[in-house]
Amino acid sequence: MGSVQARMEAALSRLLPAPQVAPAKLHEAMRYAALEGGKRVRPLLAFAAGEVTGASRERLEIAGAAVELIHAYSLVHDDMPCMDDDVLRRGKPTVHVEYDQATALLVGDALQSLAFQLISEHELSDDPARQLEMVRTLALAAGSRGMAGGQQIDLDSTGKALNLPELEFMHIHKTGALIRAAVLLGFSCGESHSDTDKARLDRYAKAVGLAFQVVDDVLDSDASTATLGKTAGKDAKQGKPTYVSAIGLPAARRLADELRQEAQAAIAELGTRATRLAELADFIVLRKF
Amino acid sequence: MGSVQARMEAALSRLLPAPQVAPAKLHEAMRYAALEGGKRVRPLLAFAAGEVTGASRERLEIAGAAVELIHAYSLVHDDMPCMDDDVLRRGKPTVHVEYDQATALLVGDALQSLAFQLISEHELSDDPARQLEMVRTLALAAGSRGMAGGQQIDLDSTGKALNLPELEFMHIHKTGALIRAAVLLGFSCGESHSDTDKARLDRYAKAVGLAFQVVDDVLDSDASTATLGKTAGKDAKQGKPTYVSAIGLPAARRLADELRQEAQAAIAELGTRATRLAELADFIVLRKF
Repeated sequence: MGSVQARMEAALSRLLPAPQVAPAKLHEAMRYAALEGGKRVRPLLAFAAGEVTGASRERLEIAGAAVELIHAYSLVHDDMPCMDDDVLRRGKPTVHVEYDQATALLVGDALQSLAFQLISEHELSDDPARQLEMVRTLALAAGSRGMAGGQQIDLDSTGKALNLPELEFMHIHKTGALIRAAVLLGFSCGESHSDTDKARLDRYAKAVGLAFQVVDDVLDSDASTATLGKTAGKDAKQGKPTYVSAIGLPAARRLADELRQEAQAAIAELGTRATRLAELADFIVLRKF
Repeated sequence: MGSVQARMEAALSRLLPAPQVAPAKLHEAMRYAALEGGKRVRPLLAFAAGEVTGASRERLEIAGAAVELIHAYSLVHDDMPCMDDDVLRRGKPTVHVEYDQATALLVGDALQSLAFQLISEHELSDDPARQLEMVRTLALAAGSRGMAGGQQIDLDSTGKALNLPELEFMHIHKTGALIRAAVLLGFSCGESHSDTDKARLDRYAKAVGLAFQVVDDVLDSDASTATLGKTAGKDAKQGKPTYVSAIGLPAARRLADELRQEAQAAIAELGTRATRLAELADFIVLRKF
């Protein structure tokens, strides 16, 4: 896992515009937002899914970087005062604190554009039509019926008590859509495709995506700010519904483990090609930070 | 021109998510931002460029919509308090005034994603590899070395006196990049390509893009808010460098006309295939609002 993370850091550093290229301030801030931080869960998932279809590392770097840039842009915008108003991210001041709000807005906008540039300008499939489908997968995952839509549902839910299906609907959009895209893009970087395998990975991705959020809520409710690298207990303070507030801590922990088992079951038939995916499902649920 | 505008309005209405689709507030606000407004200059340019290569209307609608959605998103974000802080756009309250800042942020983000969804999910070329190149053209035009970068340069220039080359550098990014993309995408929607013709359109687009901004500055300096449908005289008040502040009103008017002639010269060899492009260059420079 560490090797994929190091590889992604190098890839992102290479793929982001150099800090001295004009407009230098924007490029420096984009690099600040996207480099040296995060667990790189989405690229890890892309790489693991790529093992199922024998995808090359070069392609997986690009697909992983595109998904990670969408994720990074969403964090920059979510942290802004008009959204979650947070000052700390990955142990560093958030972009609008380190720079200013206008720059943070543009950093997010430009990171999103860069994701689509990368996924269209590098060869990710022998079949350009398949690659166009990959662009569409990323766009749908990022947009109003994916991540951005989930963020809107999240905003509108603040102060409300959501039940389990409502929470699930929110998170399938907010975090699940992009995690699903990471898995599907990694899978599509390989040339050996089967619709059955793709359906298996889709089921895996749905379970892992939800598990990821449940575990986030559990960690947020009982970890410290120093451990998380972001402000702890924030969701509860802001009156945002979480799995912990909806069903309590013990049930949230049980749910996370059930989702982990669901993810494992989805890929069981894939054998050793899915070893990394299996490891990641465990990592996502059993992580401590 | 009116028929293209009506066609684009219908296309955008069809291509934007319906207002009742969840999250309804976000989709309603996206439609508010993108429909019923604007001169649709970029789609007009895409349609006119498509006449050079015999592109179908169906394809041009998609290409025009994708470019227009990038433009619409940039207006929503530019109007926000942390950027230009404007309350009026196209004669209506800006999105963050009509809704709220968080929604405006997400509207812009989701409109950008939708642009890339449209340009990847509809067939715009017989050759998928060429269409991938179109995605890349749009991403580059929107990103940090295009429109978003131009916006950053604009922000950093506030209160400074720029000379003509500096102003030109800013506007080639801020408005020129997306206008160029509109022309190139419209051109690419056809199947009869020639590198010579493409170079002609590129030269045309560069001149028209700059002319557009010079005329904007001229209009901003002497039109009324009611005529413009947005706050007039804003740039001067905010200490932003404009062509009028850099070289004065008469010289700015002369420059606009020189650029109009440059645009006409670039496409002169194309004959009747470029009639619409020629009309548009005149329209852009001679418009009163």
